[in-house]
Amino acid sequence: MNLQTLSIVLLVISYAQAFHYIKLVQYVDDHQEEYVEALRDWVAIESDSSNIQKRPELHRMMEMVAQKLRLMGGTVELVDIGEQELPDGQTITLPKVVTAQFGSDPSKHTVCVYGHVDVQPAKLEDGWATDPYNLTDISGNMYGRGTSDNKAPVLAWIHAVKAYQALSMVLPVNVKFLIEGMEETGSNGLDAMILAQRDTFLSDVDYIIISDCGWLSRRPALTYGTRGNCYFFAEVEGPKQDLHSGVYGGAVIEPMTDLIGILDTLISPSGRILIPGIQEAVAPLSDEEWKMYQDIEFDVNHFKNKTGVNHLMYNNKVDLLAHRWRYPTVSIHGIMGAFSDPGTKTVIPAKVTAKFSIRQVPDMDPATVKKQVTHYLHSVFAKRKSPNKLKVTMVIGAKPWLADTQHPLYEAGKAAIKRVFNMEPDLIREGGTIPIARTFQDVTGKSIIMMPIGGFDDGMHSQNEKMSRYNYIEGTKLFIAYLNEVAQITKTSG
Amino acid sequence: MNLQTLSIVLLVISYAQAFHYIKLVQYVDDHQEEYVEALRDWVAIESDSSNIQKRPELHRMMEMVAQKLRLMGGTVELVDIGEQELPDGQTITLPKVVTAQFGSDPSKHTVCVYGHVDVQPAKLEDGWATDPYNLTDISGNMYGRGTSDNKAPVLAWIHAVKAYQALSMVLPVNVKFLIEGMEETGSNGLDAMILAQRDTFLSDVDYIIISDCGWLSRRPALTYGTRGNCYFFAEVEGPKQDLHSGVYGGAVIEPMTDLIGILDTLISPSGRILIPGIQEAVAPLSDEEWKMYQDIEFDVNHFKNKTGVNHLMYNNKVDLLAHRWRYPTVSIHGIMGAFSDPGTKTVIPAKVTAKFSIRQVPDMDPATVKKQVTHYLHSVFAKRKSPNKLKVTMVIGAKPWLADTQHPLYEAGKAAIKRVFNMEPDLIREGGTIPIARTFQDVTGKSIIMMPIGGFDDGMHSQNEKMSRYNYIEGTKLFIAYLNEVAQITKTSG
Repeated sequence: MNLQTLSIVLLVISYAQAFHYIKLVQYVDDHQEEYVEALRDWVAIESDSSNIQKRPELHRMMEMVAQKLRLMGGTVELVDIGEQELPDGQTITLPKVVTAQFGSDPSKHTVCVYGHVDVQPAKLEDGWATDPYNLTDISGNMYGRGTSDNKAPVLAWIHAVKAYQALSMVLPVNVKFLIEGMEETGSNGLDAMILAQRDTFLSDVDYIIISDCGWLSRRPALTYGTRGNCYFFAEVEGPKQDLHSGVYGGAVIEPMTDLIGILDTLISPSGRILIPGIQEAVAPLSDEEWKMYQDIEFDVNHFKNKTGVNHLMYNNKVDLLAHRWRYPTVSIHGIMGAFSDPGTKTVIPAKVTAKFSIRQVPDMDPATVKKQVTHYLHSVFAKRKSPNKLKVTMVIGAKPWLADTQHPLYEAGKAAIKRVFNMEPDLIREGGTIPIARTFQDVTGKSIIMMPIGGFDDGMHSQNEKMSRYNYIEGTKLFIAYLNEVAQITKTSG
Repeated sequence: MNLQTLSIVLLVISYAQAFHYIKLVQYVDDHQEEYVEALRDWVAIESDSSNIQKRPELHRMMEMVAQKLRLMGGTVELVDIGEQELPDGQTITLPKVVTAQFGSDPSKHTVCVYGHVDVQPAKLEDGWATDPYNLTDISGNMYGRGTSDNKAPVLAWIHAVKAYQALSMVLPVNVKFLIEGMEETGSNGLDAMILAQRDTFLSDVDYIIISDCGWLSRRPALTYGTRGNCYFFAEVEGPKQDLHSGVYGGAVIEPMTDLIGILDTLISPSGRILIPGIQEAVAPLSDEEWKMYQDIEFDVNHFKNKTGVNHLMYNNKVDLLAHRWRYPTVSIHGIMGAFSDPGTKTVIPAKVTAKFSIRQVPDMDPATVKKQVTHYLHSVFAKRKSPNKLKVTMVIGAKPWLADTQHPLYEAGKAAIKRVFNMEPDLIREGGTIPIARTFQDVTGKSIIMMPIGGFDDGMHSQNEKMSRYNYIEGTKLFIAYLNEVAQITKTSG
């Protein structure tokens, strides 16, 4: 075939693809209501993984996912990942992980879409304007727990595959699904499962796609980094049981006073981390990064208004984004064992445990952070000469994740976004942690892309979580386009 | 009647009394099992005033008290004291207050015994060795929630009156009862009721007797002082809702950091109060006080072992007692609104409220303390230049109470203890607060005595609360003897 013939062939392929895309888009637009109803069905299930009372709902949720994928003709498995140990020593069955496969053409790339269908807790009385488990459309926003995080994105991926099938189009890549039900409480059992299936289900996977995040503005985004998280328990123990503050106040050094004292040495009033060695380990902000951040579409004022604070820690875009994405932070989440109910109990708590976490960034290392924090708190505590005992434990040590935005996977993402939204995406990072990304990367050695379709104001983990109909439907088109783009990546660049 | 005749008459009266006492003691000893069963019946009722789910039990408890007193022929009333407002704005009926009267001879003194039959919360899983609502006798100790605090003392007073009745002996004084069911949660409604009944039920009361406390050692005690309590809420509010620490950590000054920061300025590591003006207001320790404390029977080591701490704030008796009784202390009880459950939630709490209290002593004044604390916390907070808002509220401002140990009421107490236990009592104070004592004093202008029968190791408010059979039975005899002694007080010295 000479060069001219080749050009014509490529042109025909290109037209054929363009044609396919238009038909697929039309199909998606025609089936919007069906997609919304599918989301309604899923939102109605209170698949709260943190509440063991809801575990039957969670099992039902996983079964529904599996059934949906089975009806599409996929090779579906419900993978038993064992049991969860509860704080009281009892065990409870973990929700099975759903794996599915569509297509197994060895000449094609194979992508694996990771998602989750468990949700954060939600109660109407938490401040929801609508029943969190009854999908409610208000002006094009579909409110409900788990809409954006992560049920709608999972459904969008399923619908993307289904659209190809419905139009009898061959999938441009083989598509696998790996859908779990414990993401919101730490993906219990998933690490082991990924490790166990490295040479089976995951063996032929070229790329992993995660859509468990959101845009930064109204501009579509690709996410290339997440912070890690080192979660600490600092326990101060004194008397052998809780004491009456009238009877014992003035006689004992109270554990709560000690705990407050050491917690107060973690962070300066302006938010600077005071633990020696932490800030020093952080990779310096490069000029390219500065430039990249500067170009990102992000409305500082809108962000400020959304949080409702009087002023943010930084009032310029670059500093603010940098401190959310690529600098560490310490957050003190709360204290267990002290009096936290309404009312006026006069107790001297005998054992109090502070929960705080440090978001990890390159080039911090969780093992080092563990040593730094433990050593620092013990040294601060020693100076108090307290009769009480301090125990510091790191209960989570999740590394940060960072991708190369020049990788073909990201180039394909940019092209897909260009096609659907006719604009360049923002390249963004997540301040939060998606530990499974790092696990996938470490275990499979394969590249990962995070392709969000959630809106910047979806309120994941908050009251009134929503997914806009626009993001849901256009997101489905994006996934369709992306499968096409991934197919164009030359087989060697995986 | 000449002097000789008078002597003989007095001697006969004295013998007659002695005889009566022996018969009464015999009666008490003969009815021990009946008293224990009565305590068992009362302990079986989960009259937890802090748990609104248990309110029906509490109503039932008050009705049982009333019925017991009615069956003894008393003039009994169940006084409606209105409703309690719950944090969510709903209301719930308060347990009625039981008043009763036995005897109304205007030539006699009238005492009013105050007590309560509500209890602190208790669950087996809190660390109880026995079911807290099933009275369990182990080696002469009767374990159960509310035994010592305050059901057994209330029953002992009732049995004291009943013993006189059973032996057809005329009560040496008129005895009134005022038994409430909200003591453990702040005696809601009682202040108003006392004020309302000042000129009716309380009008002819000469002395008020409270047995809602305990001994300091195995030596019987009379209590002549309590500390007051100023209970504060310090609320720091920032974002309009809880935020995800990954997404927002590094962008906002977290309310929890601010709260920890200001709490850490309240107390030094060694327990010194850092709020300006507090320590300065405290009455200096007099030589007599020092001497009095020095003479008190109190085992510092036993006290230390009981708390389970490695070392106490003070290791000599006088300092330790002084700091529990007549110096102020600050205790930080806990933080509401933060994450206090097991697990690893990554939340930035939007609004956190610390609960802390300062035990008041002479010559501190709650109104002044309120100003001092509020001003100090706001000035410390201002230095942080935080965008968050601080609100400081004093929700309880209970004054300390102090009695004259030379008062005839206390002399009568010493005599009664001498008669029953054949020893001098320790004159002690309570580190805790019994606000109603101060209210009684302020409203009625009458003298109050605190006459404990609880053991020094009864574990009020703790797991495994108990009352020893010895203290219960001998305590009943003490109350019998005390009624006799009070009758000897000349009518003018009230």
